[in-house]
Amino acid sequence: MFITFEGIEGSGKTTQIGRLSACFGENGYDTVVTREPGDTPIGKKIRAILLDPDNSGMSDLCELFLYGADRAQHLFEVVLPSLNAGKTVLCDRFTDATTVYQGAARGIAKGLIETIHSVVVKDLRPDLTVLFDLDPEIGLQRAFSALEKGARTADETRFEQEALEFHQRVRKGYLALARAEKERFLVVDAAGTQEQVFEEIVSGINNRLGIELRGKGTRAS
Amino acid sequence: MFITFEGIEGSGKTTQIGRLSACFGENGYDTVVTREPGDTPIGKKIRAILLDPDNSGMSDLCELFLYGADRAQHLFEVVLPSLNAGKTVLCDRFTDATTVYQGAARGIAKGLIETIHSVVVKDLRPDLTVLFDLDPEIGLQRAFSALEKGARTADETRFEQEALEFHQRVRKGYLALARAEKERFLVVDAAGTQEQVFEEIVSGINNRLGIELRGKGTRAS
Repeated sequence: MFITFEGIEGSGKTTQIGRLSACFGENGYDTVVTREPGDTPIGKKIRAILLDPDNSGMSDLCELFLYGADRAQHLFEVVLPSLNAGKTVLCDRFTDATTVYQGAARGIAKGLIETIHSVVVKDLRPDLTVLFDLDPEIGLQRAFSALEKGARTADETRFEQEALEFHQRVRKGYLALARAEKERFLVVDAAGTQEQVFEEIVSGINNRLGIELRGKGTRAS
Repeated sequence: MFITFEGIEGSGKTTQIGRLSACFGENGYDTVVTREPGDTPIGKKIRAILLDPDNSGMSDLCELFLYGADRAQHLFEVVLPSLNAGKTVLCDRFTDATTVYQGAARGIAKGLIETIHSVVVKDLRPDLTVLFDLDPEIGLQRAFSALEKGARTADETRFEQEALEFHQRVRKGYLALARAEKERFLVVDAAGTQEQVFEEIVSGINNRLGIELRGKGTRAS
């Protein structure tokens, strides 16, 4: 199974993916947690370029291609070998992030983005995409609060520094994708408590994928 | 005018471009010398990833996209503004390098590479492309000798470390391109002395572009 997770900055993806991975493990699934950009040694270097706020002069097309480069390496080195080995892959951001951030928010033409997707991912599609929907004002507050607490690093804030309007276009873009592909998307309300969101995700995954995850995704359970 | 320079490692491009730029300057042209990859602050970081021999596990597609990212930024930040300002741009490697290194040598399908070119460079074509043709055995000897002398750095040798056969495919690929686009390509014999090669290039540029460069491209002349 290939499950991807999407949402704006500060929507809580990382925390929930961690619990979900533990939950899959508790239920006997061999699970790989990964993310884009930056889950390979080469990808880490690409991520550093993409997220560094010093690189604010990056052209939209350069950004699109850097994400493509990271994704190509990630598929080659992590995602495809894991899927081929029968593992469940939980991936924090995938092609939808490009469609929305570089397309809906930056304004790159949809056809061009689809051309790049077809080159990079060919016919691979997630079995399920969990969209963490959240008001960007709340998301950015959370992200900057994590930054102040040292839970995030300042050298990865190029996107957080975009205007609120940019993040609103991202949210709208995600919701439009979810409406267009209702079968693939599971939209969860990321404004709830960590417990509520987790339960919503597990219940959604069980329904959509016809499996029966049990437990709380905590080692103690 | 947009003039690009192509050729295998050690073919002497850099030296000749330096002299040619001086020669253009002596003849009253406002000239910009640039190169791919790595002629912008973001491009330098991409170049470091591309040429670092530690990144030998890079997938062909990742490599293709990193070159695309560098080129997109380079066009946006250097090449297009310079051409729009009426300057003559002398560029060390451009799209032909991708067609040959990632296509002919790595084996990425031609159609896919042309798709990427069309996205990145749109309808921009060099007015002239100077191909430095050289036996790869000589080119690699020169490149490694420059490395020993400290004139090149070891952290940019990922391509030099490819097998001789790889560089032979590159050479053949370049010559095939030159045969297919005789009007755009000026093929020079890079095995000659520095003086011979320089004269061959200047004479070729004058003939092809209908201009009259004079002088030796040395500040003293």
